[in-house]
Amino acid sequence: METELSRKLGIEHAIFGFTPFPAVAAAITRAGGFGVLGAVRYTAPDDLKRDLDWMHEHTAGKPYGLDVVMPAKKVEGVTEADVEAMIPEGHRQFVRDTLAKHGVPDLPEGEASGWRITGWMEQVARNQLDVAFDYPIKLLANALGSPPADVVRRAHDHGVLVAALAGSARHAERHAEAGIDIVVAQGYEAGGHTGDIASMVLTPEVVDAVNPLPVLAAGGIGSGEQIAAALALGAQGAWLGSLWLTTYEADLHSRALTAKLLAAGSGDTVRSRALTGKPARQLRTEWTDAWDDPDGPGTLPMPLQGLLVADAVSRIQKYEVGPLLGTPVGQIVGRMNTERSVRDAFDELTRGFERAVDRINRIAGRSQS
Amino acid sequence: METELSRKLGIEHAIFGFTPFPAVAAAITRAGGFGVLGAVRYTAPDDLKRDLDWMHEHTAGKPYGLDVVMPAKKVEGVTEADVEAMIPEGHRQFVRDTLAKHGVPDLPEGEASGWRITGWMEQVARNQLDVAFDYPIKLLANALGSPPADVVRRAHDHGVLVAALAGSARHAERHAEAGIDIVVAQGYEAGGHTGDIASMVLTPEVVDAVNPLPVLAAGGIGSGEQIAAALALGAQGAWLGSLWLTTYEADLHSRALTAKLLAAGSGDTVRSRALTGKPARQLRTEWTDAWDDPDGPGTLPMPLQGLLVADAVSRIQKYEVGPLLGTPVGQIVGRMNTERSVRDAFDELTRGFERAVDRINRIAGRSQS
Repeated sequence: METELSRKLGIEHAIFGFTPFPAVAAAITRAGGFGVLGAVRYTAPDDLKRDLDWMHEHTAGKPYGLDVVMPAKKVEGVTEADVEAMIPEGHRQFVRDTLAKHGVPDLPEGEASGWRITGWMEQVARNQLDVAFDYPIKLLANALGSPPADVVRRAHDHGVLVAALAGSARHAERHAEAGIDIVVAQGYEAGGHTGDIASMVLTPEVVDAVNPLPVLAAGGIGSGEQIAAALALGAQGAWLGSLWLTTYEADLHSRALTAKLLAAGSGDTVRSRALTGKPARQLRTEWTDAWDDPDGPGTLPMPLQGLLVADAVSRIQKYEVGPLLGTPVGQIVGRMNTERSVRDAFDELTRGFERAVDRINRIAGRSQS
Repeated sequence: METELSRKLGIEHAIFGFTPFPAVAAAITRAGGFGVLGAVRYTAPDDLKRDLDWMHEHTAGKPYGLDVVMPAKKVEGVTEADVEAMIPEGHRQFVRDTLAKHGVPDLPEGEASGWRITGWMEQVARNQLDVAFDYPIKLLANALGSPPADVVRRAHDHGVLVAALAGSARHAERHAEAGIDIVVAQGYEAGGHTGDIASMVLTPEVVDAVNPLPVLAAGGIGSGEQIAAALALGAQGAWLGSLWLTTYEADLHSRALTAKLLAAGSGDTVRSRALTGKPARQLRTEWTDAWDDPDGPGTLPMPLQGLLVADAVSRIQKYEVGPLLGTPVGQIVGRMNTERSVRDAFDELTRGFERAVDRINRIAGRSQS
């Protein structure tokens, strides 16, 4: 499965796997795809360094990339305490009440949420980049808008391609103007932050909007047939995030959450502002329902919402509180019904792609294949 | 573009075009596809007879079908007056206020809305069928749930295949149990009534759920590349509705509405209950905004909402009140940027399909094509 972009990156198959787990990212790269490690949770540069060392040792010289979260708008001189002070007491009480209703215990003394707003701040992403450029990464992706011009320049100086996620053609055009190299068109059905244009419509729109820049299709892709569809729509590769969550290598720290993912249908996700303040697709839970309830207080804008719920989300995960337990995931969760290795999942993608090509050729009357 | 289903129906290309306009349906059939005439507006059997006569004369013996609206749940002995009486006065006042705010004139004396709730009632659909089975239709589609068992039997006795729309795999399984022959998997991005699972995810789910029944993919399809994607996902054909709205043969009765469709982007639609009480994708307008406003009275359930707004919608259309003027249409409206003949639109679909097959074969390394 070769496109101009996959050849440029030196990978066998134009399959890009986004994941917060180094073991998953490395396995995707080893399987012949392109593993992209999500860096948002690395607030300490040394932790990122440790995991990139590990990635480097486990990718056998094959290429991989890093995904950072660098907000388009710079927030100057604002501390976490400043943001904390902007959260209304009514919202804090709503968090306490909702957790109490479900009997969610407190975190142990001295144990704070792993998630901090600082992970979303530009300086943290810049510290991550200082680490990352010491490694032979081939791609730097940004999940929130175009990266700043100096970051794009710095990446290019290191021979690193820059990708950015877009939920609309206009959004993609702004990325192109900012000098990025690859647009990831993220459809409505995707897990995480996403707009409301579905991949079937969004992919070709973005391809046309930024031509000749290469586009990766994201959202609704968890099979080789869906990869074939994305490539038929003009993408130069597929960007998959959700699929890896139920692989053996994924470290969700919760059997209950894995079980929920394996059991969920495609209709069991919701695009909600509950997690970060911006619409992000995730498992629908009583937690998302509480935030989406028109009779509730509603969510706060990013980054307030993320800070408001950080400890609560940690508590729900730590104590595996079933009705509240969720995670960002796309509509393809409905087909994530077995645990398996990344390698098995990857090989099934390439087999499914070949089946789809056979099928299309039969339909087109090109039966030699 | 041949599938098992297209061969069974005797059509050249597995492209199904749904439209309320006989001239469009006939042109789709003549071009080598399968035209499906939407019957909901034919409350008088003679009108349907007249248009089916015309279709018959203009399809040169090639196959076509009919789409009726037959609610799954039978409403016994309920008259339009009964339903009228269930509409709260506050909602009627909201309609009057919203129209007055935009200076929408009344309909002329004696001129009522063309849309009547009766078009949605089972007896009307049965009257339509009495007419339709006198014509050599090859397909009967139902837009609301599975048709009643006796209707399925009657269709089969006439050698007519029965299709039903589904927005989820479970919904599709119920159709299969009801003995229908074809499932139309209608994705989130589609115009008209639709669920929230996008085509990229829905199509293969429905294909697997009802296997070996054939599935048509609907929603987000307006190009040959999108048809190739749908077929890669396992569909035996594509079902297109929106694309034909800006063809010369479509009779929208409003240049302003055509202009709005030509100018709209993929982000200019909304899935709203404003039109019928069930979520239906349509152009987003100040009219849909008013109904979707959390501070407004909100919509009523089907069939009350449709009856409540019928005259208002007629007035908005007749007087072409720009900010309120809308129509059901899918997210592909963003690519409907030129007026052309059905034949030109159709030929572009088949050309785009061949381009997509070429592309997929290059990517798969099957370069002989």
